[in-house]
Amino acid sequence: MIIVPEKEIAGLIGRQESFDAVESVFAAMAGGAAYNFPVIREAIGHADALYGFKSGFDRSSLALGLKSGGYWPGNMAKGLTNHQSTVFLFDADTGKAKAVVGGNLLTALRTAAASAVSIKHLARKDAKVLGMIGAGHQSAFQMRAAVEQRDFEKVLGWNLHPEMLVRLEETANELGLPYESVDLARLGAEADVIISITSSFDPILMEEHVSPGTHIACMGTDTKGKQEVDVALVAKAKLFTDEIAQSATIGECQHAVASGIVSEDNIIEIGAVINGNHPGRTSQSDITLFDGTGVGLQDLAVASAAVDLAIQKGVAIEVDF
Amino acid sequence: MIIVPEKEIAGLIGRQESFDAVESVFAAMAGGAAYNFPVIREAIGHADALYGFKSGFDRSSLALGLKSGGYWPGNMAKGLTNHQSTVFLFDADTGKAKAVVGGNLLTALRTAAASAVSIKHLARKDAKVLGMIGAGHQSAFQMRAAVEQRDFEKVLGWNLHPEMLVRLEETANELGLPYESVDLARLGAEADVIISITSSFDPILMEEHVSPGTHIACMGTDTKGKQEVDVALVAKAKLFTDEIAQSATIGECQHAVASGIVSEDNIIEIGAVINGNHPGRTSQSDITLFDGTGVGLQDLAVASAAVDLAIQKGVAIEVDF
Repeated sequence: MIIVPEKEIAGLIGRQESFDAVESVFAAMAGGAAYNFPVIREAIGHADALYGFKSGFDRSSLALGLKSGGYWPGNMAKGLTNHQSTVFLFDADTGKAKAVVGGNLLTALRTAAASAVSIKHLARKDAKVLGMIGAGHQSAFQMRAAVEQRDFEKVLGWNLHPEMLVRLEETANELGLPYESVDLARLGAEADVIISITSSFDPILMEEHVSPGTHIACMGTDTKGKQEVDVALVAKAKLFTDEIAQSATIGECQHAVASGIVSEDNIIEIGAVINGNHPGRTSQSDITLFDGTGVGLQDLAVASAAVDLAIQKGVAIEVDF
Repeated sequence: MIIVPEKEIAGLIGRQESFDAVESVFAAMAGGAAYNFPVIREAIGHADALYGFKSGFDRSSLALGLKSGGYWPGNMAKGLTNHQSTVFLFDADTGKAKAVVGGNLLTALRTAAASAVSIKHLARKDAKVLGMIGAGHQSAFQMRAAVEQRDFEKVLGWNLHPEMLVRLEETANELGLPYESVDLARLGAEADVIISITSSFDPILMEEHVSPGTHIACMGTDTKGKQEVDVALVAKAKLFTDEIAQSATIGECQHAVASGIVSEDNIIEIGAVINGNHPGRTSQSDITLFDGTGVGLQDLAVASAAVDLAIQKGVAIEVDF
């Protein structure tokens, strides 16, 4: 069994490898070779923790396993990350445990890769302005991955708590891009691509904010009740997602589906676009919306890549198990 | 993170520790301190494998995690066990991965411990004859654990394929007990305790076989469709189980519940008997039936015990994770 500790991940796998892994597995999902198992998510009644598993199997890559972990809100006070994840991979030919991989940075990378994949396949080629809604820890990952997909010339940012916007400014500067904090009306009017990455339970971005031709990646909604964009905007957009079942139940589309304005049939797996089986955006004026709910197969894909790289680079710990 | 390889388990944990761990966690389940999360079980469409997770949390012991693995029917030809299991434990205070423990022998021990716990709490004190239905790999584990609970004087055995009965004979001999292969009528007439551990999809033991006062531990039925004993026998018996929800859906009671003869209200958690909140057997003539479906918390309990023992005995592998 191979162990890849959390502290090694940053030296092993970067944005490009994560992008490739996530793009491939989205394609495999749409092609029917890969599927996610039901998600387990439990409030365990201890330490206010949410704990669970996301799991699946990709027959094309033979990635089999799960990401386990959750959210421990008291961790920060102990000097630990509140989100704790570990990925466990199994040998699909024998069922034997194959690898244990630190999953914290991998989760950030695969979530950023998902919105980047959506930008590659759905945003206008001439997109110049990137709008960021949300300025938490994950926002910097999303921005860094996004700017590699188009020749962005500017970043606009909005956050519920303005004092956190400094993260967006610093990240844009690091990327050599001018940055401006703006209100949602300006962000929606000027941005060609908008990424929302918040933990909101109320819509932030409204239909009237958004201009024709925009691509929106909604990356924050992963639980029943959460919401980042207005139902009317969802109804107006061409809808894409990582997994339709999650999109309709725990993703950004849940509210539009629950209200009957949108049905699951209106939501396209992004893998179908990657595979060339769906045209994706068909006009410069389409509003495209990618509902990134986050699936276990993404975790398995980036963890598998990390294991391969750890073996290549000689940092994999091998345990006779 | 601590690693306890499969090959170390036999030297670390035996029947008594497994019995104590399983008895405690059944008590915690009935007391409301421990619960199992939904089971994931998937035919993955590769290598004819069944793969999944059993998981849960025990607030009393803080055991949190899952057993993952499954059934790979082609393993035997490769010199591997068809059933492959690994237990992953997490720190309930932080969500960090705590231990990875080989789960193959542990699964055998915890399954044997469950029927032994049921014999301790439900069989007549004067039980003398043990009947074994099923002679597969697991049957020897069940017999060894069972004979430690009563002063058995004889073992009777039955198996669909008589050529396998040699396992029961050898195990009884190893335990210093006379053994006889018999038909089901004699087994039912003479046995005071019957353990069934088969993978049958049709009832084997019928109502007319069984004498008043018998305790039956049905340990083989863990999937929709499996069945070891007749519905009429289930209807006649006082019913106990590890977990009522599993008993009624994938355990031995599933058929009686589906046919409406028995309701979930008729099935008692064995933990309630352990805790003294249910009398269990109330007469020498009661037929008691324990439906051992197998829960994730059993796996976590024995794996936690194995980790503690591995640390004590200096065989735990510690990895800076």
